[in-house]
Amino acid sequence: MKVTILGNNSALPAFGRHPTAQIVTVYGEMILVDCGEGTQNQMQRYGIRWRNIHHVFISHLHGDHYFGLPGLLNSMSLLGRTAPLYLYGPSALFGIINEILRVAETKLSYPLNFYPLSGATDVLVDNAYFTLTSFPVAHRINCCGLLVQKKTRGRKLLVEKCRELDIPTASYEALKAGADYVGPDGNVVKNELVTEEGPKSLKYAYCADTLFTDSYMDIIKGADTIYHECTYLEADAEKAFQRFHSTAGQAAQIAQMAGCNQLLLGHFSSKYKELEKFEEEAREIFVNSQIAVEGITYDI
Amino acid sequence: MKVTILGNNSALPAFGRHPTAQIVTVYGEMILVDCGEGTQNQMQRYGIRWRNIHHVFISHLHGDHYFGLPGLLNSMSLLGRTAPLYLYGPSALFGIINEILRVAETKLSYPLNFYPLSGATDVLVDNAYFTLTSFPVAHRINCCGLLVQKKTRGRKLLVEKCRELDIPTASYEALKAGADYVGPDGNVVKNELVTEEGPKSLKYAYCADTLFTDSYMDIIKGADTIYHECTYLEADAEKAFQRFHSTAGQAAQIAQMAGCNQLLLGHFSSKYKELEKFEEEAREIFVNSQIAVEGITYDI
Repeated sequence: MKVTILGNNSALPAFGRHPTAQIVTVYGEMILVDCGEGTQNQMQRYGIRWRNIHHVFISHLHGDHYFGLPGLLNSMSLLGRTAPLYLYGPSALFGIINEILRVAETKLSYPLNFYPLSGATDVLVDNAYFTLTSFPVAHRINCCGLLVQKKTRGRKLLVEKCRELDIPTASYEALKAGADYVGPDGNVVKNELVTEEGPKSLKYAYCADTLFTDSYMDIIKGADTIYHECTYLEADAEKAFQRFHSTAGQAAQIAQMAGCNQLLLGHFSSKYKELEKFEEEAREIFVNSQIAVEGITYDI
Repeated sequence: MKVTILGNNSALPAFGRHPTAQIVTVYGEMILVDCGEGTQNQMQRYGIRWRNIHHVFISHLHGDHYFGLPGLLNSMSLLGRTAPLYLYGPSALFGIINEILRVAETKLSYPLNFYPLSGATDVLVDNAYFTLTSFPVAHRINCCGLLVQKKTRGRKLLVEKCRELDIPTASYEALKAGADYVGPDGNVVKNELVTEEGPKSLKYAYCADTLFTDSYMDIIKGADTIYHECTYLEADAEKAFQRFHSTAGQAAQIAQMAGCNQLLLGHFSSKYKELEKFEEEAREIFVNSQIAVEGITYDI
């Protein structure tokens, strides 16, 4: 499970930085989280293939989080996508998308399935591989974060060992699920002998745009990696509060309270050319803090 | 009078090319003509200052011609613009912009004055410096081209000569308008002695997205420079027709029929990586044809 940053800036493009967008990859499946203007160009630049994207989450309707979506939806259609796309966002988003398609007399080449966010905690997806859960944060307009939980897929089979012991492939699924193998003559092969621990469950919390609050702490507690906005440095804490944003230090406090392993910092104000201080300020509170750099993929 | 190309591609970004946008500059005033996704980034890249833009023209509501507009309008507001902005486009555009502002609870920092295109020939602006006239072309959905006409500003004053002859500055405006100077003692200075020919009137025709037709020839006749789309090469003439687009050769025929000095070719399909053949095909019909290259400013 990993996350690739496509945009780490807030509000407007500046210093080569782009508005918010990121790709969470779980078992090869990609989830696009927010889609600022130019996201399709960033995808081209960093080799992200839209064919691997089946889920798109839009946290809120400030333009720097979704102005790239109409163009991306269009391009997928022009390039002949047929696989359904699942879109989660504030209810007004669908009206805007539909009006944009209507005036262009465009019919998408694929089904676009829209699920409005209720504003409460919603389980959006729960399949064999992962769950997606949206949760409200505290911003000027309705805004939700996203929790991505990768599921374990049982134990990992040691195929060579199974072959040595003449275990038939028909029994492999049961072994992955944790059962011992019982042969036709009643001989027992203990599960631990032919399997090892599978990939562990992982949690990634994307905290979107929010002021500093512990209101969603229950949801993100124990996350392996947290992405938290920090539009401002500590010196501008008052401004951050007024504009429903956070500082680097506040993001670090959230990471510490949640007991996570890694904090990614993003959504920087265009007033800052250099970003080192964000990392410095956050690390004073939570050591494993780092700038979410565009084009970089972070293990979760 | 000049035009700076910000995007020369059609439909979707490809090979580093961007969707349609260009800046026409007349007497220092900038007119933004179409605004594909990423136009604000292209403006940053090529040093175009939004403060010089007071007029924005959107030819039609296919996304590659306006998906950059919401972001640009937002950014101007975040950067504290106060000067009014005049926006011309299909009537449905204003509803989309207003809905995008409403859901974001955004009030722009400047007046946005919207003028819907009627679909007939409309004089949008007629001031001391230029006129803007929209005219219908033939595309799949309602679409208009734009004619920009730079006005002459009378004769150019030879200030040094005027000083030598002790002509008072109060008489300068009359000289520019073509009058002779008559001194207090009745002496006459012929206009030609202290002025020379002023900048000449110029016409630039932006033909937007259209199939090959002479239906708007009356409007663009005698233009100094024509920008004409050529989404396809001649080999794909059938496809061009079906999709309401033109070929390079057709663009060149239009230029020849209009008797213009210079043809700029743009709106290339993403199926073409190399563009040389567009120029080759057009030049067989109209010699002064050239690719409209992004970042390049062309004299009109």
